[in-house]
Amino acid sequence: MFATEDNITELATQRWGTAESPRLAELMAGLVQHLHDFAREVRLTEDEWMAAMQWLTRAGQISDEKREELILASDVLGLSMLVVQMNHRFDDAATPATVLGPFHIDGSPTLPYGHDMSDGIEGVPFFVTGTVRSVDGSPIAGAVLDVWQADADGLYESQIADLDEARLRAKFATRDDGTYCVRSIVPLGYSIPMDGPVGDLISRTQIAHYRPAHIHFLLEEDGYERLVTHIFEEGTRYIDSDVVFGTKEALITPFTTHTGGTAPDGTSFDRPFVTAEFDFVLQRS
Amino acid sequence: MFATEDNITELATQRWGTAESPRLAELMAGLVQHLHDFAREVRLTEDEWMAAMQWLTRAGQISDEKREELILASDVLGLSMLVVQMNHRFDDAATPATVLGPFHIDGSPTLPYGHDMSDGIEGVPFFVTGTVRSVDGSPIAGAVLDVWQADADGLYESQIADLDEARLRAKFATRDDGTYCVRSIVPLGYSIPMDGPVGDLISRTQIAHYRPAHIHFLLEEDGYERLVTHIFEEGTRYIDSDVVFGTKEALITPFTTHTGGTAPDGTSFDRPFVTAEFDFVLQRS
Ligand SMILES: [Fe+2]
Ligand SMILES: [Fe+2]
Repeated sequence: MFATEDNITELATQRWGTAESPRLAELMAGLVQHLHDFAREVRLTEDEWMAAMQWLTRAGQISDEKREELILASDVLGLSMLVVQMNHRFDDAATPATVLGPFHIDGSPTLPYGHDMSDGIEGVPFFVTGTVRSVDGSPIAGAVLDVWQADADGLYESQIADLDEARLRAKFATRDDGTYCVRSIVPLGYSIPMDGPVGDLISRTQIAHYRPAHIHFLLEEDGYERLVTHIFEEGTRYIDSDVVFGTKEALITPFTTHTGGTAPDGTSFDRPFVTAEFDFVLQRS
Repeated sequence: MFATEDNITELATQRWGTAESPRLAELMAGLVQHLHDFAREVRLTEDEWMAAMQWLTRAGQISDEKREELILASDVLGLSMLVVQMNHRFDDAATPATVLGPFHIDGSPTLPYGHDMSDGIEGVPFFVTGTVRSVDGSPIAGAVLDVWQADADGLYESQIADLDEARLRAKFATRDDGTYCVRSIVPLGYSIPMDGPVGDLISRTQIAHYRPAHIHFLLEEDGYERLVTHIFEEGTRYIDSDVVFGTKEALITPFTTHTGGTAPDGTSFDRPFVTAEFDFVLQRS
C-alpha cells in the first residue's frame, strides 16, 4: 500500500508499531501520531519544516559536556516539568519535586554540619537550616542533602572551564534529630543561556528568560522516594514567571537578612548574612 | 500562577502564544500542546525522556554538510512525506510530488538531449524518455528536468568526498514537442545510512531500511507548480515498503531490458541497455 495524505499516519504508526519492545512500539507509534497531528493541525509548510530540522540540528551541535541545549528546549517548553510531575505524584504533605536541570554533578564532597560550601567565593553569607522528616512527621537521621547552586554571575561549576575542585556544591547529612545546616552564599536569579537556538526562539516571544533565585537539593534515602527539588526565595524577581516552570508554592521560603550577630552555625558576624529555613518531607517508597 | 501537572500545558501554550509573529505563536502553541499530549498519553518516564534528549543531541552531532540525520528521522517517521503531500495537493491528472531527500545539489550542468550523465561510471546504460505536458495535455517546450541518482553502491555525489565535478546529476531541457531523453545508468535500491541514531532505532523494529530503485527529478517552469518527484522501477524490491513512504502508484513505470540494438538516442548497442518511459504532467500555478 502506497502512502497518501490520508493514510500515511496509519501506515507510519503501524510500521513503528513493529518495534520488538512493546514499550518502544507504544512510544514510537504515539510519537508518530502526535507529530503528524501537529503537522496537519498547523498545516506545516515545507519552509517551516526545514527551519525546524535546521533548528534541531543546531541544538544538537551546540551541545557538549557543559551544555545541553535539547534539555533546555524541553525545560522552556514545559515538557521537563510535566515529566517530573507525572513521575513523582507525591502526597500533598511531602515536599514536591522539581526539575533537576543540567547542572548537577555527581560525587560532591561531604561537609560537616554548617560548613561553608562557598569556600571564599564572593557573595553574602547564606545559611539554610531545617529538618528532614518523613510524611508522618518523624525526623530522619543521617539523610544526605546533595546541594548545588550558581554563583553571583549565574554560573554553575559545569559552566566554568578547567576547575580542579568542587565549586558551590556539597553534601550535608542530617544530625540525629533530623536537622541540617548548609552554609553558602545567597543564590541569585539568572538567565538561561541565550546565545543558542533556544535563546533565538525565546527572543522572538515575550517570555522572560530568567529563573528566580533558588538553590538545588537532591535527597536520596533508603526507603523513601528520591527527591529532586529547589528552595526558592520568597518575593524574588521572576518568582511568578520561572522560564522552566519549576516554581511551586511549597518550595518558596523567606530569605531573612540579618545586619550582623550570631549565625545558625554559631559564627559571629559583624556584616550582613542571610538565613532561610526549610523542612524537607520525604515520601516513603 | 505556578505550574501543576494539570495546568502546565495551558501555561506553556499561553506563554509561547506570546511570540511576536502570529504564525510562530500558532506553531509553538500547537507544538507544546502535542508534545505534552504525547508525554501524558504514554506517561513518559524520566529515563525515556532522557534517552530522547540524548538521541536528538546525537542526531544533531552526527549531521554535517553531507549528512542530515534529523531530515532522515523525519523521512522515516513519515513526517516529510506528509508535509510534501499537504503542500502539493495537485490535480489527479498531474504527476504527484514526493520527497526531495537530502541529496539534491543545485547548479547541475545542462546536457543536450540524450547525453550521458553517468559519464563512464560503471552500470547498465539507462534511458528515460517521455514528454513534459500541462494538465490540459499540451506539451511544454524548453522545460528543464533537473535529474539526480545514486550509483551502483547506493551513493549520491554528496556522500562521496573530494569530487571536483558533477556526478550522476544533470539538467535536460525538453525539445519543441515537449520530449526529453536522459541517459544514465540503471538506478538500484539502496539502504538509508544505518550507522547513526536513526539506524539504531530502525534496527530495533521490523522496518525494512531500504528505498526501492528510483531516479530523482525536479521540474521548475514559469507558470507551473514546482514538481519534486521520482520515477520508480515497476516490480523492484522494496517497492511496497519504501522506508521514507515516497512511492506512489503514478510514479511507477516499467524498466525494459533490451539485449542490444538501437537506443532512444540513436546509439547502437551490442550489449544490454534499459529503457523507461515517463510523461511528466505539470499543474498550472
Ligand atoms: Fe538552577
Ligand atoms: Fe534517492
